Amino acid sequence: MAATDDRRPKYQRIADSLREAIRSGEYGPGDRLPGENDLMAAHGVARMTARQALGVLRDEGIAEARKGAGVFVRSFRPLRRRGIQRLAREQWGNGRSIWSADIESRVLEVDQVSVSEEAAPAYVSAALDLAAEDVVCVRRRRFVLDDKPVQLSTSYLPLALVAGSAVTQEDTGPGGTYARLAELGYEPVHFREEIRSRMPSPDEVSQLSISPGTPVILVCRTAFAAQGRPVEVNEMALDAASYVLEYDFDAS
Amino acid sequence: MAATDDRRPKYQRIADSLREAIRSGEYGPGDRLPGENDLMAAHGVARMTARQALGVLRDEGIAEARKGAGVFVRSFRPLRRRGIQRLAREQWGNGRSIWSADIESRVLEVDQVSVSEEAAPAYVSAALDLAAEDVVCVRRRRFVLDDKPVQLSTSYLPLALVAGSAVTQEDTGPGGTYARLAELGYEPVHFREEIRSRMPSPDEVSQLSISPGTPVILVCRTAFAAQGRPVEVNEMALDAASYVLEYDFDAS
Repeated sequence: MAATDDRRPKYQRIADSLREAIRSGEYGPGDRLPGENDLMAAHGVARMTARQALGVLRDEGIAEARKGAGVFVRSFRPLRRRGIQRLAREQWGNGRSIWSADIESRVLEVDQVSVSEEAAPAYVSAALDLAAEDVVCVRRRRFVLDDKPVQLSTSYLPLALVAGSAVTQEDTGPGGTYARLAELGYEPVHFREEIRSRMPSPDEVSQLSISPGTPVILVCRTAFAAQGRPVEVNEMALDAASYVLEYDFDAS
Repeated sequence: MAATDDRRPKYQRIADSLREAIRSGEYGPGDRLPGENDLMAAHGVARMTARQALGVLRDEGIAEARKGAGVFVRSFRPLRRRGIQRLAREQWGNGRSIWSADIESRVLEVDQVSVSEEAAPAYVSAALDLAAEDVVCVRRRRFVLDDKPVQLSTSYLPLALVAGSAVTQEDTGPGGTYARLAELGYEPVHFREEIRSRMPSPDEVSQLSISPGTPVILVCRTAFAAQGRPVEVNEMALDAASYVLEYDFDAS
């Protein structure tokens, strides 16, 4: 919007012009931005002003400093997550994992998985229509893309539905949890995804190696079997610098 | 995940326990959190440690300080934006605005609107299948909920399609832009929404009155008429503290 408001501090106006140059493509992902000396000369400002301007872009997650080399436009080569196609039955019904639909030619892997039986948090019990004392199977996974952790996923399933099945194993087998649910008579036929965003918790910063100034996108998916029976709640925390979420749908 | 890692600084462990108490519902939205004195007594720590712990929750946007009154769980009463239902033809086809589907009993209003004719940014030209020199109609709006600005929206439409229609007016009439596009023979039949998140720019902070430590959710929607013809690109920046985005869809 109003890109040149003269009442704004000089360093913000310099940051605005750099941001606009990045947005327009003048500086692409991975390009080196003008340094402090360049900005001092171009705008006739003190070093501290130039430094503050670059700091604004770093704080917004648009640029990143590389020690001794300067400040660069952050390489944003996001994972495109197609919300609707990826959950189509033909995907998991044919023994593919859901997330294999996301990755094109890139390598997305689960590098941590744990399975446990726990009392469900209250909001999970409510979403799964469970009584407070009911136990759930909890599957915690971390997903890594190109060696960078990009997603934490915590999936809750009513233990009464999945006890004794491969859902309670680390390796759920071909097609994963949804293929197993289908075999158990609880085939997911409908999904609801809720999307939020906030700054990461310290634990998320550490587990996802998140850069400063980068939020997480939270996706909470509920999977429903026939008759609207909820069979899974999956809470995901995504490194916002690594993802674009895409939803394609018709008007009617 | 690992909630009690004893190698982490004390203030982070106190922040973790408060965060968990909020997550579990022990402290609800608007509740006052234990103050510095309470935390000092409960955990046997110095005032600075208690202050740092509360600072972590403020920085994450979970809590907010109110001058002289303490630190409170932020009231998160988000606008639920149902991505697919809200764009159903019966919505705008019946003269309702798209966003009236979001608001239940709350008051969402456009408090700023401007319309102009501009050369399209390169990525908009590309998305709309336009030549570089083609001009677009640009509609910029700000949406306010309960007197708080929550969304900035910039909509681009090929001027060749909408010139002379109410789309180029501040008030587009009943059903808004999509109803007018339908009358012009370019009824939107398909949508793609792309979702990203990042920290707000200074301009977004100011226009949306965003609290510190709160990201924006970016929604970029492309509307397609028959034969996959793109007719609108709408870039939205949402205050992440004000929105939950919901997408409901079937498995096949």
